[in-house]
Amino acid sequence: MSHNSFGHLFRVTTWGESHGPAIGCTIDGTPPNIRFTLAELQAHLDRRRPGQSRYTTQRQEPDQVRVLSGVMPGEAEGEYISTGTPIALQIDNTDQRSKDYSDIARRYRPGHADVTYDVKYGIRDYRGGGRSSARETAMRVAAGGIARKIVPGLTVRGALVAIGDVWVDRARWDWDEVSRNPFFCPDATTAAKWAELLDGVRKRGSSIGAVVEIVADGVPAGLGAPIYAKLDADIASGLMSINAVKGVEIGDGFAAAALSGEDNADQMRPGTDGKPEYLSNHAGGILGGIATGQPVVARFAVKPTSSILTPRQSVDADGNAVDVMTKGRHDPCVGIRAVPVGEAMVACAVADHFLIDRGQIGATRV
Amino acid sequence: MSHNSFGHLFRVTTWGESHGPAIGCTIDGTPPNIRFTLAELQAHLDRRRPGQSRYTTQRQEPDQVRVLSGVMPGEAEGEYISTGTPIALQIDNTDQRSKDYSDIARRYRPGHADVTYDVKYGIRDYRGGGRSSARETAMRVAAGGIARKIVPGLTVRGALVAIGDVWVDRARWDWDEVSRNPFFCPDATTAAKWAELLDGVRKRGSSIGAVVEIVADGVPAGLGAPIYAKLDADIASGLMSINAVKGVEIGDGFAAAALSGEDNADQMRPGTDGKPEYLSNHAGGILGGIATGQPVVARFAVKPTSSILTPRQSVDADGNAVDVMTKGRHDPCVGIRAVPVGEAMVACAVADHFLIDRGQIGATRV
Amino acid sequence: MSHNSFGHLFRVTTWGESHGPAIGCTIDGTPPNIRFTLAELQAHLDRRRPGQSRYTTQRQEPDQVRVLSGVMPGEAEGEYISTGTPIALQIDNTDQRSKDYSDIARRYRPGHADVTYDVKYGIRDYRGGGRSSARETAMRVAAGGIARKIVPGLTVRGALVAIGDVWVDRARWDWDEVSRNPFFCPDATTAAKWAELLDGVRKRGSSIGAVVEIVADGVPAGLGAPIYAKLDADIASGLMSINAVKGVEIGDGFAAAALSGEDNADQMRPGTDGKPEYLSNHAGGILGGIATGQPVVARFAVKPTSSILTPRQSVDADGNAVDVMTKGRHDPCVGIRAVPVGEAMVACAVADHFLIDRGQIGATRV
Amino acid sequence: MSHNSFGHLFRVTTWGESHGPAIGCTIDGTPPNIRFTLAELQAHLDRRRPGQSRYTTQRQEPDQVRVLSGVMPGEAEGEYISTGTPIALQIDNTDQRSKDYSDIARRYRPGHADVTYDVKYGIRDYRGGGRSSARETAMRVAAGGIARKIVPGLTVRGALVAIGDVWVDRARWDWDEVSRNPFFCPDATTAAKWAELLDGVRKRGSSIGAVVEIVADGVPAGLGAPIYAKLDADIASGLMSINAVKGVEIGDGFAAAALSGEDNADQMRPGTDGKPEYLSNHAGGILGGIATGQPVVARFAVKPTSSILTPRQSVDADGNAVDVMTKGRHDPCVGIRAVPVGEAMVACAVADHFLIDRGQIGATRV
Repeated sequence: MSHNSFGHLFRVTTWGESHGPAIGCTIDGTPPNIRFTLAELQAHLDRRRPGQSRYTTQRQEPDQVRVLSGVMPGEAEGEYISTGTPIALQIDNTDQRSKDYSDIARRYRPGHADVTYDVKYGIRDYRGGGRSSARETAMRVAAGGIARKIVPGLTVRGALVAIGDVWVDRARWDWDEVSRNPFFCPDATTAAKWAELLDGVRKRGSSIGAVVEIVADGVPAGLGAPIYAKLDADIASGLMSINAVKGVEIGDGFAAAALSGEDNADQMRPGTDGKPEYLSNHAGGILGGIATGQPVVARFAVKPTSSILTPRQSVDADGNAVDVMTKGRHDPCVGIRAVPVGEAMVACAVADHFLIDRGQIGATRV
Repeated sequence: MSHNSFGHLFRVTTWGESHGPAIGCTIDGTPPNIRFTLAELQAHLDRRRPGQSRYTTQRQEPDQVRVLSGVMPGEAEGEYISTGTPIALQIDNTDQRSKDYSDIARRYRPGHADVTYDVKYGIRDYRGGGRSSARETAMRVAAGGIARKIVPGLTVRGALVAIGDVWVDRARWDWDEVSRNPFFCPDATTAAKWAELLDGVRKRGSSIGAVVEIVADGVPAGLGAPIYAKLDADIASGLMSINAVKGVEIGDGFAAAALSGEDNADQMRPGTDGKPEYLSNHAGGILGGIATGQPVVARFAVKPTSSILTPRQSVDADGNAVDVMTKGRHDPCVGIRAVPVGEAMVACAVADHFLIDRGQIGATRV
Repeated sequence: MSHNSFGHLFRVTTWGESHGPAIGCTIDGTPPNIRFTLAELQAHLDRRRPGQSRYTTQRQEPDQVRVLSGVMPGEAEGEYISTGTPIALQIDNTDQRSKDYSDIARRYRPGHADVTYDVKYGIRDYRGGGRSSARETAMRVAAGGIARKIVPGLTVRGALVAIGDVWVDRARWDWDEVSRNPFFCPDATTAAKWAELLDGVRKRGSSIGAVVEIVADGVPAGLGAPIYAKLDADIASGLMSINAVKGVEIGDGFAAAALSGEDNADQMRPGTDGKPEYLSNHAGGILGGIATGQPVVARFAVKPTSSILTPRQSVDADGNAVDVMTKGRHDPCVGIRAVPVGEAMVACAVADHFLIDRGQIGATRV
Repeated sequence: MSHNSFGHLFRVTTWGESHGPAIGCTIDGTPPNIRFTLAELQAHLDRRRPGQSRYTTQRQEPDQVRVLSGVMPGEAEGEYISTGTPIALQIDNTDQRSKDYSDIARRYRPGHADVTYDVKYGIRDYRGGGRSSARETAMRVAAGGIARKIVPGLTVRGALVAIGDVWVDRARWDWDEVSRNPFFCPDATTAAKWAELLDGVRKRGSSIGAVVEIVADGVPAGLGAPIYAKLDADIASGLMSINAVKGVEIGDGFAAAALSGEDNADQMRPGTDGKPEYLSNHAGGILGGIATGQPVVARFAVKPTSSILTPRQSVDADGNAVDVMTKGRHDPCVGIRAVPVGEAMVACAVADHFLIDRGQIGATRV
């Protein structure tokens, strides 16, 4: 058992604190002969990177990932070929301003994990949130970049579908729009509303929550496993483990509770390829923990960051009442940068079940 | 890695199909000297048992659990004392009507796992849903009965909070009411509405979804573990692994997405015992994957069962178009019986993290 | 983590005490469409069964195994086909004479685990050794019977190669001889010596140790995995976990320490099939934790049972000095019955790595 | 499941190849508030470091370990305090002479894992043995340095007890002597014989095997766990996973096979502290997989390195017959440097079971 690992056969173990010398991960179980480039990993990391618009934190983290093991050079420039041994990825921490955090060494920020880390461990790296910093999610994104390469034909995309109570208009959904605005919003009209909404939030020194949707196309039918390591249970675990996430849905999710059996069950008819063709996808691509071959659809709710400018009542490590106001450079809506992180967790879960089905070696022979 | 196991140190492995000779589980990691009675386990099982009202399936499953290993007899009548070795629990299958299911051996019921099991394994025990039957959840409830005994002071309770779009009135919430109606409803007024609603559903041969809420009191502050085996991630995995569950929330869950940082973060003040006292519980008792000491609150959405009397379009194993109508004895609202199952999964996750913190032996020495 | 489980993807979890109602195991991860018969499992169990000659305990354990889940009936009489879900096996305990053991409830038998179980757990099922009884190994043999079916072309055979300091004559090795004598001895001449030796041991109420050799033919080249879950490390773990085992070797084992590099390294030349042909097998079929394709050869040392008629100095649970003499029906040489158990552990480890390489589903598609 | 990890709760995952930019490991599960210094880790590493005498390889690996996460600075110079989060350790590779290895890129060195890696993965980092290089064991030693700090009162020492067929004289055993000669030999007289023996081996360009003995004092009685994750099974797995190891023994090991039950079982009498006092230690401190409180004694056999100057018959990756002679800087007896590695694996296994018993948090509260 490893608290800092995700996955069974495709196993990602992360390490590192926000303000240590570096963060990193070890990816164990990657099949041999998987090709990837540093540029591909970096592209995913850049989508998550802060400081790209006024709607995310102004910290500058170049987040240059390095590959330290598990590969041989490929023929193309910057290409790597996996050898089947553990792939170690690492990102140096460069833009650390420890002084920003000195005042919170012993004061618990409400809504943050400061207090629970102290209760559990009796010691804590308080600089920048230490291990509980969202910085850890950079390694998830990097690992996800490799996971995406393992399953032939897999595409994992994400979008922000709500900020506060402003939801995207699904009739206007356009995947191409996602990369054109700073919100991963699939609908330009909603993106404009969010810009206005977030400007207000930011000016008030406040923050707001969001909902992210991940869609994985090309998940082979049959992936997954009853009863406990179900594909949806593993996705739920992966998404819920992301900082600030408080809810996870598959397919219709909570809305399914209000449906009748007639409306909820996805009917089938014979497809042109002899396989079942589904007439709807309320199930979100998973039945009994096993992929149907339809797109896998997952959503997760991200709470508003607790790092806000308004003073809040709290206590310090000595049990005194204190007021805490979080200065520093924070995201008004941490849900935005959670989009590539959610994609990565779904990609990792799918790659993991792909290996369970086909084997570490068999996966590349099929 | 074991697909049919839940938990790290308190590890439950279940086996068995709906219409095999028996179902069972092995509980590995129970500390020694935990006392429990068969009657206690049975009481939990009886709450889940079908056939107790007209709102659940009329199958009669006496579900008499037996303890086959891992215990010595206690001094009291029917009492067991755990020895620290694996506890095997078993329930014989008695009310099997295989003939009810013969027509679905090769016809895929929409919304069920028939098709995905066949795609994955190429073979499937089709009788009564086989391994994907909700019958498996009886072993979860039994295992949960032991988990509850491991953490001193732990109480795990559940209630149904919505059927369809009819939600309980939280102002009327009364835990004592839960056991007085056939819906695990904490509010008698809503229970009456649900009775009417479900009578209609049942008469139409239809089904409807539901939302369950689980509250765990007495979870010691500090339980849990960053980054991946978080207490909330493990609870999410456990609840999402229950049949028909499509969504999981902790604390405010999806509603947190609509909150501001000021409203969402739970403020603290010094408590009378020197520990922080929280002024609210939006977090649902978990921050950074670690328990705060407040009640742990989780909710999950259960889809309507796909076993309905209305014919639905589908295919058979040979790829032909067929209409499928599920006869037999089914629950109009499977969410009802999911309440004790959800309790069990939360109890197992909490017991597991208790052992991770204190150790299999240390747990009983504290 | 599960203390009572063996294997990663082919995962066997055993439960049960010597004098409880039954013993059993759950085998998780068996690929679908594996065919086996009860008679095959029983044949392996019968080889391990006590009471078959005067050289093993006279307890009568019919050891009739039952299959409770994870299968559909095959076309042939008594045939099962695995479905990919957990296979539960169970053997009822029938010949329990609890009275034989009442005097050792609180007296620690030297060389047995009585004292360590009590130190660890503070409670112990003392009847017949409880969980530490060699009876648990019956489930290993049953599980091994299924493991053998998973890897096409795999043959796992075992033989006793030493009792005390009397070793078999390798020049006379004949696998067919193994089933013709009560010692699993591959050499009739040595078998005759052992008969005489053991008659003396038995008459003195003493016991003696033994060495077992397991040879697995047909292990596909490439199975195994660096660095920690090596095929040889997993075999070592599995064999060392058998009761009374104190040493494990692969290939030349400890004798390799006395060799020079020239003599130890197995030279190769091109084989007729284009694959390397090895000129010797000092490595025992494993290099760098990965199978070479040659026979995998493992040996393990079994200590003499500590259940002997000579009184030995000991203490009781209250700390008093006592003399302990183990009455009852015991094996003069427990190493004999360890042969099929060792075969089973090697078969399980090989099947496990086969699944890691090929996948639970891929394994049956290759 | 993770092939490159060791341990259950104290979990070490290593990565890196001999000639990549660095090697490293992540240690997950270390309890908080464990104090250690870089100098302590370095001291263990220096004992394993090559180039210290003419009896080990002349490669110069300064092996300066760095701590990248999981700690806060302690009060003393160079002191770290663990925080309970993953500890990442890293050593840069500096003395890489890739040209030395260019001729073996496609030629399989007999006795090495070249051929099996290629069969398994179809690709391999051939430089310096890549992942199968003994360089990986540096990270085991570093991780072991932290493991040693976790169990109060634990001392793990190792010694070389045989080179070839020359065994130490146990009557002369002196632990202090171990650090005074380049062989970790506990007996000066034998050390002199080994010097002469190895000079001959080295001059012939040959190599020779060895046997290492590890003794762990202060292992708390009760550590360990039946049935499969036994303390001895875990030690066997850990030691067998070290490069070139072909055999593992606990206590009397293979010699136990030749003993009678009277001679093998360790008798007990009441100790002055009320606990059992053992009159001998044939069991090597472990009964039924659980520590007795006596010293835990393990031995392992290391084969002669296959890197020798004598040409050997082999094949290349294209299936051609070739002669292979391993030039470069190699150890005439790799068993020597295996001593600190063996210590580390035993320390890790003991620390792991300590946490299983006491818990990650409970371990530091007891």
